[in-house]
Amino acid sequence: MKVIQVDKFISEANDKDAARLRAQLKEKGVLFLNLMSSPGSGKTTFLSRTLKDLSDLRLGVMEADIASTVDAERIAALGARSIQVHTGGMCHMDAGMTGAALEGLGTDELDIIFLENVGNLICPAEFDTGAHKNVMILSVPEGDDKPLKYPLMFEQSDVLIISKTDALPYFNFDLEKCRERVRRLNPAIEIFPLSAKTGEGMEAWEAWLRKNIFSR
Amino acid sequence: MKVIQVDKFISEANDKDAARLRAQLKEKGVLFLNLMSSPGSGKTTFLSRTLKDLSDLRLGVMEADIASTVDAERIAALGARSIQVHTGGMCHMDAGMTGAALEGLGTDELDIIFLENVGNLICPAEFDTGAHKNVMILSVPEGDDKPLKYPLMFEQSDVLIISKTDALPYFNFDLEKCRERVRRLNPAIEIFPLSAKTGEGMEAWEAWLRKNIFSR
Repeated sequence: MKVIQVDKFISEANDKDAARLRAQLKEKGVLFLNLMSSPGSGKTTFLSRTLKDLSDLRLGVMEADIASTVDAERIAALGARSIQVHTGGMCHMDAGMTGAALEGLGTDELDIIFLENVGNLICPAEFDTGAHKNVMILSVPEGDDKPLKYPLMFEQSDVLIISKTDALPYFNFDLEKCRERVRRLNPAIEIFPLSAKTGEGMEAWEAWLRKNIFSR
Repeated sequence: MKVIQVDKFISEANDKDAARLRAQLKEKGVLFLNLMSSPGSGKTTFLSRTLKDLSDLRLGVMEADIASTVDAERIAALGARSIQVHTGGMCHMDAGMTGAALEGLGTDELDIIFLENVGNLICPAEFDTGAHKNVMILSVPEGDDKPLKYPLMFEQSDVLIISKTDALPYFNFDLEKCRERVRRLNPAIEIFPLSAKTGEGMEAWEAWLRKNIFSR
């Protein structure tokens, strides 16, 4: 089998902006999380459940989408402070776009800000948004081979949510094999298998969130 | 709800190269198809089944991946002529990369060449690869709202495969609603719901393929 290698595209342009955002938010006591995943992994359902469960905290959400406001409408309906960012076709958020969105949202009197990044397992991993932690979501129907195919995303993430575990009986997804593949790329990553539909496993993730906020 | 609009990134750089590839392949009688989808939509399973079912045709496959050879190994095991392209982190294939891969694969004595593009619903839609037809795959677990969120991919595709229909009983996916949303973006698109696992619906897709080849 032949293999062709194409030169790697490297962007380091926005690292400074990202570091500045990260420091400013930490000083204000706001934990900033960047949620990344494929399209259709259940990011918005997962985030909605998290917002409901942590209603004692002050939470803000930035929804990044190419065009629609589908997700932002779902989040706004929960009463969370939220803003929609339209990337106009762009496949990721960078620190500049994130900075503009943070300004639009306002960062006062918040404990956590979630950025729901564009659904994409590749490009968002290449751009530092200024988040304190990167959280990626892999859903059971996508398959346990994804760490082999999209390694950078798994390497860049502090937390891996394995979502839609209620679908495990219907798919050929080996949870242990997936864990091993992920840990080989990133030994320090925290892994939370869960179902936002049934609520199973949400507690461990939410305990991790509470442990990591700056402000209390 | 606030909405921020970021300027659109437009790439038209490789349109000439793509047009040249398309004309050359047509002259040789080789139908070139570009398969695009999210990570985990079941592209490789779908392609494997198609290759098996059409074993009377002369088929070639180019597997584009960021890093691994997982998919290419599955395809090579079926005995199809195949080549792995490593994009080195790149989120899409352009006509230049495709041209190099076609040269590596060889285009003589083939009826169809499939390009399995990088798993990504955004960037691949922006770059003409030189394919005669774009085929996108949306899997049932991803949800019926994807046309709203990734419109360009649906607009740029000639065929939509709705895959993993065997999972319809376990997911909240409205086939009719999905069809309507897609046809609003792209009235001419051909839509084939199917399951590569059970084989249901494969025939209609394969009849379309046979109808569209140049060489017989």
